[in-house]
Amino acid sequence: MIAMLPGSFDPPTLGHIDIIERSAKMYEKLYVVVSSNIQKNPLFTAQERKEMLQEILQNHDNIEVVIYDGLVVDFARKHKIKIMIRGVRALVDFGYEFELAMTNKQLYDELEVLFMPTSPNYFLLRSSAIKELAFYGADIETMVPPIVAKNIKERFDA
Amino acid sequence: MIAMLPGSFDPPTLGHIDIIERSAKMYEKLYVVVSSNIQKNPLFTAQERKEMLQEILQNHDNIEVVIYDGLVVDFARKHKIKIMIRGVRALVDFGYEFELAMTNKQLYDELEVLFMPTSPNYFLLRSSAIKELAFYGADIETMVPPIVAKNIKERFDA
Amino acid sequence: MIAMLPGSFDPPTLGHIDIIERSAKMYEKLYVVVSSNIQKNPLFTAQERKEMLQEILQNHDNIEVVIYDGLVVDFARKHKIKIMIRGVRALVDFGYEFELAMTNKQLYDELEVLFMPTSPNYFLLRSSAIKELAFYGADIETMVPPIVAKNIKERFDA
Amino acid sequence: MIAMLPGSFDPPTLGHIDIIERSAKMYEKLYVVVSSNIQKNPLFTAQERKEMLQEILQNHDNIEVVIYDGLVVDFARKHKIKIMIRGVRALVDFGYEFELAMTNKQLYDELEVLFMPTSPNYFLLRSSAIKELAFYGADIETMVPPIVAKNIKERFDA
Amino acid sequence: MIAMLPGSFDPPTLGHIDIIERSAKMYEKLYVVVSSNIQKNPLFTAQERKEMLQEILQNHDNIEVVIYDGLVVDFARKHKIKIMIRGVRALVDFGYEFELAMTNKQLYDELEVLFMPTSPNYFLLRSSAIKELAFYGADIETMVPPIVAKNIKERFDA
Amino acid sequence: MIAMLPGSFDPPTLGHIDIIERSAKMYEKLYVVVSSNIQKNPLFTAQERKEMLQEILQNHDNIEVVIYDGLVVDFARKHKIKIMIRGVRALVDFGYEFELAMTNKQLYDELEVLFMPTSPNYFLLRSSAIKELAFYGADIETMVPPIVAKNIKERFDA
Repeated sequence: MIAMLPGSFDPPTLGHIDIIERSAKMYEKLYVVVSSNIQKNPLFTAQERKEMLQEILQNHDNIEVVIYDGLVVDFARKHKIKIMIRGVRALVDFGYEFELAMTNKQLYDELEVLFMPTSPNYFLLRSSAIKELAFYGADIETMVPPIVAKNIKERFDA
Repeated sequence: MIAMLPGSFDPPTLGHIDIIERSAKMYEKLYVVVSSNIQKNPLFTAQERKEMLQEILQNHDNIEVVIYDGLVVDFARKHKIKIMIRGVRALVDFGYEFELAMTNKQLYDELEVLFMPTSPNYFLLRSSAIKELAFYGADIETMVPPIVAKNIKERFDA
Repeated sequence: MIAMLPGSFDPPTLGHIDIIERSAKMYEKLYVVVSSNIQKNPLFTAQERKEMLQEILQNHDNIEVVIYDGLVVDFARKHKIKIMIRGVRALVDFGYEFELAMTNKQLYDELEVLFMPTSPNYFLLRSSAIKELAFYGADIETMVPPIVAKNIKERFDA
Repeated sequence: MIAMLPGSFDPPTLGHIDIIERSAKMYEKLYVVVSSNIQKNPLFTAQERKEMLQEILQNHDNIEVVIYDGLVVDFARKHKIKIMIRGVRALVDFGYEFELAMTNKQLYDELEVLFMPTSPNYFLLRSSAIKELAFYGADIETMVPPIVAKNIKERFDA
Repeated sequence: MIAMLPGSFDPPTLGHIDIIERSAKMYEKLYVVVSSNIQKNPLFTAQERKEMLQEILQNHDNIEVVIYDGLVVDFARKHKIKIMIRGVRALVDFGYEFELAMTNKQLYDELEVLFMPTSPNYFLLRSSAIKELAFYGADIETMVPPIVAKNIKERFDA
Repeated sequence: MIAMLPGSFDPPTLGHIDIIERSAKMYEKLYVVVSSNIQKNPLFTAQERKEMLQEILQNHDNIEVVIYDGLVVDFARKHKIKIMIRGVRALVDFGYEFELAMTNKQLYDELEVLFMPTSPNYFLLRSSAIKELAFYGADIETMVPPIVAKNIKERFDA
């Protein structure tokens, strides 16, 4: 089966990569869908985020990274995708995820949204927190892939 | 007794109408209070929201829709209202509602805030989510009254 | 309108009395319904709990304390009661209350369940905690009405 | 891929059946694993629960109902199952589910636990609540499959 | 031992003062650290907040109020502080606090973050809510120290 | 200062030991208080639990393990202890802990209850879950100190 995994990925964290790689093992093909919209003041453009993900995930033949700027259910419907994976962290607002899942299913009934628990090692890795830590000069090399750490550093040093 | 039901109603959803109509059955008179303040970037003006609510609720003799731009407790005190109804959704941050209720009671001790559970059919209807869905062209006709669907469509097509 | 307020009241706390008295101001008549069932190992029998409540609430002409041993919705339907009040504490499992309210409404559609926030002064008063404190000899006189404190003391001294 | 869906199913509800049937569409084979242990005072024996599930699900060729009385991860390891589905209700204690998922993954690292949101129609269907409602004579025919309703009725009439 | 208590304090509330004074009893020295960053649209500058806290806390010899504009863990590391106190309110998002504590500990392993429950009297005092109430002319004298009430009044009258 | 850390410790887990050792660094003396009461069907007697803790913590001069069978606040008052530490896990019901802390403070006003976050490594270690896992033969050696693993094994093999 084909599955999709949508997100902002601004920037991609080790937690994201963990969820993506575990998901890719379960499905024939996995679309990683970078949303280009909403994000206020993104650190990286959708194109930059897509390229980082492609580089990080280049050894996975069944993963395709794409940009989409509409509703994720429209992407799913267009590509006849029936499964959407969402990584969930224990400390996150689960109610919000649940509501989003049910809204998506209401808009496209054939879609199943599955929640995959983030590994405890990656509980703390929220993209927004990582950006703030980096801004204040904290060491984020244990939180993001090397290419992302390098790019963030350049961005804040610029 | 007289009761009030405050909110932003930007826009009014079927969930709001459900709570308003169920509340109106319990009290001699129900004020639906449209707050004109705070709302950053409202889709509709307070006046437009009031008019939509009036049209939708026109068959209820004991409902009066008003605009108020101060603290809701001040409206309650001014009109000697002792009961405020708040619709609560299962997936919402209940802690916030509880805190608001206690703050209001602290400012006006005679006021009782009662929480009425939203019907499961309307769990997913948050005004902010509906606006976002409409922006991306999703069909929201099952989420809001016809007059609201029509007005939202015009707003985004304009 | 007529309302009901069901509970175990084993024993009645100052928090219960607060919710009951505030509710009685809002309705012509209020039934306080003592459930006789479920309670494993009650400290007081349903009859004893009813009598304590009657004594404590004797100055309220519009309150009637009754025992009922079936589903609360059956009591509501039998007495044509359309409103059920539930006191909710900020620290309680609100999800459970929500689920109970929706189940009750599903069984008897005309019933509205309204949640009334417990006063901050009474946040800590759970009947089960009070019983445990009393068992270990803690002073519970600020937590329950005098008649209840006296009865609990006799029970544990016996 | 092969997946498993463990539970007590005492009794099976329409919510269980919904999750099972939606899961069966996603995998080549789905084991529905009835746990025979823990359950204090079950209404039905594990064998009875298995037989009800088999009858209800008889038209699904890729579903196999089995009884297992050890840790679910041991069942998974023995049958080389890498995916475990858990239905989650919005109002349930998600923290507990998360903890269970992580413990299971710690015991058997190749296992992925995926949470599938229960349909809003079935939010209220907890097996334990249904048993209590049935005990007091409430109508549960909209909550469980016909065969289950019939068996519960016989059990409580006996 | 030395401890620190970081916050925005815009403005300082009676709840903040309660937590600060209770903490000061437990440690030889307590740094109250006013963060100068992040706060969008602060009502008072970091310098003004520091001065109000100094005036309110002037009778405590072991409290030092300072401004810091980096990560709180950097302040801790620089001053060899091993204990950070965070006041927590029952109604607040505890998950967020937990995550922050763990992130801080990850950045500076010798640091212990301890949560101190806010007194029930001060449950409702969020700085942001107080500012909004003051803006609409509500009486906030029971919520903040006199000097703060006076300064807020001047700010909004100006 | 002197602090206390109460619990059931049936059995002591690596999570308990982590919290105890981190607390012992912060105070001159730390009482680890094993409650002998309440626990229904304990796996180990209070005396056995005390002895395991003593053996595990024998290298800490400032830790004293004691048994107490009353309210923990009474122990605190008797020994003039002003600080009680509670380890909290991110996934636990924080509301319950908060309530307990406030009740304890109400019974003994000089007492401060401080919550210390459990390390992510030990999030999953609930005593009750460990007992159940051990019962089904799962390997618990990464969850409890060696002496505890040995004793549990003997208990279940007996």
